[in-house]
Order: sequence, then C-alpha cells, then structure tokens
Amino acid sequence: MSVEQRKIVKFQVDMECDEKCEMCERFFKCNSPKKLEIFDRRRMSRVRETMKRIKHKIAICAGKGGVGKSTVSVNIATALAMKGQKVTILDQDLDGSCIPRMMGVLDKKLIMEKKGMRPVEGILGIQVVALANIQEEKDTTTWYHELRRNATEEFLAHVQYGDRDYLIIDLPPGTSSDAVNLMQYIPDLDGMVVVTVPSIVSQTVARRAGLMAIEGGVKVVGIIENMSGYMCSNCKKINYPMLVGGGEELAKELEVPFLGRIPLDPRVSSSTDAGAPYVYEYSESPIAKAIFSIVDNIEKSV
Amino acid sequence: MSVEQRKIVKFQVDMECDEKCEMCERFFKCNSPKKLEIFDRRRMSRVRETMKRIKHKIAICAGKGGVGKSTVSVNIATALAMKGQKVTILDQDLDGSCIPRMMGVLDKKLIMEKKGMRPVEGILGIQVVALANIQEEKDTTTWYHELRRNATEEFLAHVQYGDRDYLIIDLPPGTSSDAVNLMQYIPDLDGMVVVTVPSIVSQTVARRAGLMAIEGGVKVVGIIENMSGYMCSNCKKINYPMLVGGGEELAKELEVPFLGRIPLDPRVSSSTDAGAPYVYEYSESPIAKAIFSIVDNIEKSV
Repeated sequence: MSVEQRKIVKFQVDMECDEKCEMCERFFKCNSPKKLEIFDRRRMSRVRETMKRIKHKIAICAGKGGVGKSTVSVNIATALAMKGQKVTILDQDLDGSCIPRMMGVLDKKLIMEKKGMRPVEGILGIQVVALANIQEEKDTTTWYHELRRNATEEFLAHVQYGDRDYLIIDLPPGTSSDAVNLMQYIPDLDGMVVVTVPSIVSQTVARRAGLMAIEGGVKVVGIIENMSGYMCSNCKKINYPMLVGGGEELAKELEVPFLGRIPLDPRVSSSTDAGAPYVYEYSESPIAKAIFSIVDNIEKSV
Repeated sequence: MSVEQRKIVKFQVDMECDEKCEMCERFFKCNSPKKLEIFDRRRMSRVRETMKRIKHKIAICAGKGGVGKSTVSVNIATALAMKGQKVTILDQDLDGSCIPRMMGVLDKKLIMEKKGMRPVEGILGIQVVALANIQEEKDTTTWYHELRRNATEEFLAHVQYGDRDYLIIDLPPGTSSDAVNLMQYIPDLDGMVVVTVPSIVSQTVARRAGLMAIEGGVKVVGIIENMSGYMCSNCKKINYPMLVGGGEELAKELEVPFLGRIPLDPRVSSSTDAGAPYVYEYSESPIAKAIFSIVDNIEKSV
C-alpha cells in the first residue's frame, strides 16, 4: 500500500449557496450580508411577534440523550413557577416528546383557535406545548429537516403564549436540525443551559452542545451536573455509580458558569413517571434545594 | 369561543410524490411499485455488494437517549467476539459518536484507501467505524437529512469490512433520519434490539422505536431492560433507583422476545470511560453473565 493511496477520511460538503438559508448546515458560519435578509423575510416576522411577549427564553440541552434534560427542564420550570414566575415549557423533542407525561398533562390536547394553538396547562399555571399533546402515544414521528423546521416554527409562532416570564425549551439529543432551528428562530434566546452526567462520555458530547451554542452566538448560561452521586435507600451512604466533577471541569474548559450538581434520588424517576415534578412534591429535600439554588443562579444570569 | 373555532391540532403532511424516495418521510408506508426501483437504481448496488459479505446485521436502538444503547452495543459486540465471532461495530450516531472512546480506539483514524475506508481495530479484532474516528473531539456535527444519508451510505458502501459474522449498529436517539436511512439501506437487516430502562418515560419512547421497526418491516429481535436495579457498593443491597419490569411489559405488548435485564454496576461507567468493555474486563461478574445470556438469546434468534 503506497502512501499516495492512503489518506485520512474527510467528509466533503458542497460549499455553493442556493439561498435556502433555512436548509443550510452552514448558517451560523455564513458571513453573507444576504443571509439574515433571506431568512427574515420568509420566516421570522410572526415568530418575533409571538416571542417578544416572553421575557426570558432559555433552552436546556445536553447533546447526549438520557442525562436528564427533560427532568431538569420540568424541575427548573416548576421551581421558577413556585417562585411566582409565569412559566411555559416547550418540548422541542419531536421524536420522543416526554414533557407532558412528566407534567401530568398527557391526557390534555392542544386546541387550535383562530388566534393560534392554546397551550395545555399543568400545576401552578405552567403552560406546556408539546407534540405528545397532539399525537397518540403509539404514533411514531419520522420527520426530516424541513418538516422539523415547520413544526418548530408552528410552536414558536402560532401559539397563544400571551405574556410570560420564562419559556423553558427542552431540546432533544443531537446538535443538528432541532437545535439549529431553535437558535435560528429565536435570535434573542437568553441562553442555553447544558446538562451533563459525570461520565467522560457524557462530558464529551455536552462539550459539543456547548460549542454549538457558542458557534451560533448563543450565551451558555451554565453547566449542570446531573445524577451526581446517589443515596442508598437502605444505609444512606452516597454511592457514586459514575464519576463526579465532569460538569465543573467542562464549565472551566468552556469558560462558562457551573450552575450546580443534582444527586440522584429514586423519587426523581417515580415522580417523573407519575407526572408530579419532584421539586414540587419534595420541596424540602436536599435535592430540591440543589435545584432551587441552580434556579437562583439562572435568574441572576438572565 | 364557539365550537367551530376550536379543533384538535393535527400536523398536515404534503402527500404528493416527487419521486425522491430517499428524502421521503413516508417511505415505509408507500405502496408505489416505483418505490424500490427509484431508490435501488440510484443508491443501493454498492451498499449491497459490501453488506452481503457480513452474515448478520443487528441494529441497537432505544428511541430515547442515555438508556445505555452504546454501552449495550459495545458489550454485545465484545461478548460475541469473546465467543469467537468476527465482529464490527458501526457507530451510526453522527452528532454524538461515543463508540470509539468506549472501545479504546479514539486515537486511531479511519484511513481511506483505493478500495474504501479501512476500519480501525480494537481488542479481539473488533472493527470500529465511527465519525469520531474522522472528526476531532471538539468538532460539532450540524447535518440535516441529505448529509446524514450520505454519511450512512458512505459507512455502508465504502468501507473494507471484508467477511464478518456480525455487524452491530449503534443507532442514535430518535426515530427519524438516521434510523430510517439505516433501514432503507440494509433491507436484509436481521433485526433490531430495543433497549429501555425501567421507567415509564423510557418505555414510552422505546415503544415508538419498536413500532418504527415493525412499520419498516424490520424484525424486533427483542427488548433489553438496562439499568435494572443497582447494587450499593457499601452494604451490597440492591437498590431500585427506577422501577423494574418495564422492559418485560413492553416485550409482551409488542409481542416480541424479552432478552434480559442488565443491572447497574459503577464499573460499567468507569470501564466505558476507560475504553475497556465491561464484559471483557469483568467477565466473571453476574452482570457480565447477564450480558452473555442476552447474547445467547440474540444468536439463537438470527
């Protein structure tokens, strides 16, 4: 095998511009003066109209799945509502929408009215907008970029949110369609909260999510280390099924705030399944206190 | 508000055919006699050529992220290799590729030769093909459907797998682009293994993955319940941070085999981070035995 025959594989991307900004993978890297104009004219005005009545918009992401993004979203939203804020959760996970179950509003349906969709409502007046409030539980979603973008646009433009203090957006795993659509449609996003578990693998993927936000000009509000230690229900010793400290390390590396740790409690999973947010059901537990402290940090930051 | 003004929201999908099968969300539902012809002619011949030298192709999916799909993939592949099979792992997760780290081959690069890419190799001659062996750790992927499909095609058509017994494909979360691309390109897929953790939320999303496979005409090899119980390292009591039994219930509901449970061991996470598959490092542990029993079930099924 001669040297000429071997080279490191690189995926090549066609660099020609077809003026379809909303379909372009290089949106955030593009410096063309036409970029915003093309995208704006076609898509943005109605979204802006709806979004300007919401004071703060925060996306919760992780890059990786299953690190507790949705659980963290639900508990942050509930903690904010417990502090008197008017809060909406937008479930941006189109393939695996879970927020309605976690908020106990799975049986409610989104209603279309002349003025747009009316969000369903859970405890403390928390609004929920999610595909699971449209589909049946057994429906599967198979949508590619264009349809995903349309769904995101619908959820941002044609919903009667009204005047709200916080929109908490739960992003699905990955750093492609859904994350980018959201960043394109909400240029005044307050920021992104990145959730990781302590493992190096999770940290690696969370880093990608953080870098994606930075690349898109979105502020990283901070890093949360979830599932950071676990208490044995028998002897009360704290076990460490995974390493600890990865979240803090990542925060240092990306030069963004570390928002705090959330240890694992069996009741987090059971309350999530039961549709009763943990922080509301067990507001006096040390873990709820950790969540409130994280929410304080978020409020200070926006 | 009159009744006429209110209706349950349904997303509408344009049902016209533009003869772009590979971009179509309704591929598996389509009955057009032209379907396979259009898709085949354009895309399939080279993939078939490469794939026919691999005896068994099994995809590991979950719908949801973070339930341990990649860890399960790595351990199933390693267990098969320990039983003397020639095994390749294809990391189909393009945004959050983790397999190379878990297999300890992150520092190796995919080399392009005249005959196609040459896979990197880990312990027991296990081949690994993954985007993380192309990109740098700090690179983020922002690809929509077309680019994702091209990447999948590259990985299935232009790699020198050679003659293999098993191709284990680790699918990313979701039921859209990446899962569907794979099912389109490998019509002779032996089947799909669905991984869930015991929570109802995970079960709900895993159900969607199972239904997607069934809709696409792919056999569900069975369900694995991962993170099913956890042993306290201090007092040895088995804790149940999440419910138990969801995997078995789902298997019954979908009328597919239940392959087994894998309890949580702190060393699963640490061995995964260290790039040494658990089943290889701790082959005598009860959890490794559970994995071997699952692999026996898979071998019987294909």
